[in-house]
Amino acid sequence: MLKYDKLIIATGAVSGRPAISGTDLPVVFALRWIEDGFFINRYMVEHHPESAIILGSGYIGLEMADALTRKGLAVTVLARSGRMLTALDPELGDIIRRELSKHGVKMIDRIDVTAIEKKNQRLTVRNSWEVPLESDMVLVATGITPETALAGKAGVFTGIHKAIRVTQAMETNIKDIYAAGDCAETWHRLLNKFTYLPLGTTAHKQGRVAGENVAGGSQEFAGTLGTQVVKIFDLVVTRTGLFDKEALEAGFDPLTVKLEAWDHKVYYPNASPLQLCLTGDRKTNRLLGAQMVGSYKAEVSKRIDILATALFNGMTVDSLNHLDLSYTPPLSSPWDPVQLMAQAWSLKHKRVEI
Amino acid sequence: MLKYDKLIIATGAVSGRPAISGTDLPVVFALRWIEDGFFINRYMVEHHPESAIILGSGYIGLEMADALTRKGLAVTVLARSGRMLTALDPELGDIIRRELSKHGVKMIDRIDVTAIEKKNQRLTVRNSWEVPLESDMVLVATGITPETALAGKAGVFTGIHKAIRVTQAMETNIKDIYAAGDCAETWHRLLNKFTYLPLGTTAHKQGRVAGENVAGGSQEFAGTLGTQVVKIFDLVVTRTGLFDKEALEAGFDPLTVKLEAWDHKVYYPNASPLQLCLTGDRKTNRLLGAQMVGSYKAEVSKRIDILATALFNGMTVDSLNHLDLSYTPPLSSPWDPVQLMAQAWSLKHKRVEI
Repeated sequence: MLKYDKLIIATGAVSGRPAISGTDLPVVFALRWIEDGFFINRYMVEHHPESAIILGSGYIGLEMADALTRKGLAVTVLARSGRMLTALDPELGDIIRRELSKHGVKMIDRIDVTAIEKKNQRLTVRNSWEVPLESDMVLVATGITPETALAGKAGVFTGIHKAIRVTQAMETNIKDIYAAGDCAETWHRLLNKFTYLPLGTTAHKQGRVAGENVAGGSQEFAGTLGTQVVKIFDLVVTRTGLFDKEALEAGFDPLTVKLEAWDHKVYYPNASPLQLCLTGDRKTNRLLGAQMVGSYKAEVSKRIDILATALFNGMTVDSLNHLDLSYTPPLSSPWDPVQLMAQAWSLKHKRVEI
Repeated sequence: MLKYDKLIIATGAVSGRPAISGTDLPVVFALRWIEDGFFINRYMVEHHPESAIILGSGYIGLEMADALTRKGLAVTVLARSGRMLTALDPELGDIIRRELSKHGVKMIDRIDVTAIEKKNQRLTVRNSWEVPLESDMVLVATGITPETALAGKAGVFTGIHKAIRVTQAMETNIKDIYAAGDCAETWHRLLNKFTYLPLGTTAHKQGRVAGENVAGGSQEFAGTLGTQVVKIFDLVVTRTGLFDKEALEAGFDPLTVKLEAWDHKVYYPNASPLQLCLTGDRKTNRLLGAQMVGSYKAEVSKRIDILATALFNGMTVDSLNHLDLSYTPPLSSPWDPVQLMAQAWSLKHKRVEI
């Protein structure tokens, strides 16, 4: 028995497994812990699989499609939703689809897996299409579930997606018990409410807040903006804030603009196009969210962070044009793509108003 | 004779030429206009020079050292100040020196050029060291001067560095005459006063403000933060805001921290170290400025823009830790280097206070 003055629950999350038979077969893998990675790698080194089926088209599914393709496997991604990365605008999702296809990844949409069976050292994935799919290994990447068994026994309340309910100070309903990370709910700075959005960045911040508070501090978690990024082959795909649809549901009056812009001056070698999407509030001009897809050499990830910083500070779309951003021809334009997004939005906004 | 209702003076700047003999020789070049670039290129194509001496170690001088080295010339940079890029912290300047040296560029410090002479198709640069330097061509990159002859004739007042005095609405002292760009003064958002800082980004913003205002608008230039970036060979060198010394002179109580951090997770290939420098105000915790040097593959330029956006919004150093920045192992860490800078600063700040 260990006693405590203050307790932080940081039990994380576990891989979700679809309720079908065969997910417990030895060559049906999940990827949650470092050990899972080592386990998959050892299997590959020892058995030289030539093909893999991945259940799920979220971040983990697509990163593993990239990694396994690079290792020489023929990869098929099964997307139940019919979309690549539901965290993205469908049009931008299509760019990812082309990138995957270019690298030989097969994608099958709107498919439900009904069972996984083992036959002669190979796996058969039975599915709603009734055309059995075969492969040497299967990776299940269908999401995660907060690990709250311990919290539950202690009488700690759970809420959204059965994650632990917390305050912005990361306190649970029980005095002196805190929670942080993938096991806990997340305050959303734009939605002004709790949600469940388990990401490493958020986990670190919540842990820091909980840590300071159990040591006598009075920190508050300032909230997530839903900033996310993933690299898939040569593409970087990233977002921050709200989509048009999410903004509408949250009571905003969103207007969204989509455009393409060069990452840097075209007269300097290796310029590449960025696919851009920006959402702002029609009534207040407030920036609400943005998405970008582009080459991993095009500083896409830190460009979304300019917008995340603007969002954090509640900036209007117009005011992005006043930002003194860095420019040199190999790396940007005098108006950075971030500002070209703002200008395109303002123009559309004026036209819509007229 | 052209009549006007409203006039915008946008005459830019001209290359400064040191007051020595020989700067008018045909193979002594400047680089201000596109034509200068074409002219240098044509000379190189026709005459195959093997060596160049560059007067000046600012942005243009060092970018041209890079470009001419890539074209196969032996390049020598003469730095009167004894520093590479006086716009940077001396320690970070030394990193640039090593990068130039690695690529074969010679640098001579604390040298005054006294004359340029032509002898047998070659140039001799006479100097304060009294060891004459020889080369096939010379590039003068010793700064620029605002072009205000026209403005002067119209009775428009000039101020700092003889640039045109303007308001934040880009009005001059004469009704209906505006000025914008390298010919005009620049409002500094942190110093709360006018300065002269001729940069393309600023020129674009001032032009937009002047343009809107002559068309009946009421825009104000929100001010420069002094954000600057340059790529030299494989390095990107960038800054925003104030240095420690500048902050002190401006009445702040600056504290500066320097550190090194990886651009992304080291377990993912090709991580590279970033040299970081952050200045904040001891009394108010307000962020005052930052510098970064790193590989041009390390998203250095758009990382400084996160800080420029934070500066624009008057954020404290501590609050940088609350920013929801993007993270994926190939591109960052759960705490982005920008936040590691903030954490190092806060730690030093606490220690200094104790």
